[in-house]
Amino acid sequence: MSARPVLDQPVSSEEVRSRFAENLRRLRERSGVSQETLARMCDLHRTEVSLLERRLRSPRLDTLIILAEGLELASLAELVEGIG
Amino acid sequence: MSARPVLDQPVSSEEVRSRFAENLRRLRERSGVSQETLARMCDLHRTEVSLLERRLRSPRLDTLIILAEGLELASLAELVEGIG
Repeated sequence: MSARPVLDQPVSSEEVRSRFAENLRRLRERSGVSQETLARMCDLHRTEVSLLERRLRSPRLDTLIILAEGLELASLAELVEGIG
Repeated sequence: MSARPVLDQPVSSEEVRSRFAENLRRLRERSGVSQETLARMCDLHRTEVSLLERRLRSPRLDTLIILAEGLELASLAELVEGIG
């Protein structure tokens, strides 16, 4: 019943990476591009999308913005939905 | 007039750090805590908030979540508002 669910249920770093990985994979597959293609479109290192989807890395904010642009999302919010 | 402003005006990494720094400082000052206190509350390195507010670092997603919790925000969206 709290207005601050993030405080009631602190999210672990592992959980953040896991939830983000799910969002990224879902949105990338919706766009119909491979991990490598998305990385190239975004001018990221070719392994970056793979690392993120395998939950091995927590993305920096500038990478989030770049991915949102590459996936043609209306805003960053869609990429981090349900995470925090 | 586009539904996708992020695509029309790509945001540079510097601009992302700058906009985020402004958001963080505003929200931290609203909470009335120092950079060092916020870092300690969030169990971040004592220089992390300072680095972010001086635009020297782009925060990782797990750090964003932790900061949103420490600042008692309703969601991550408030912290990244107007950035992407």
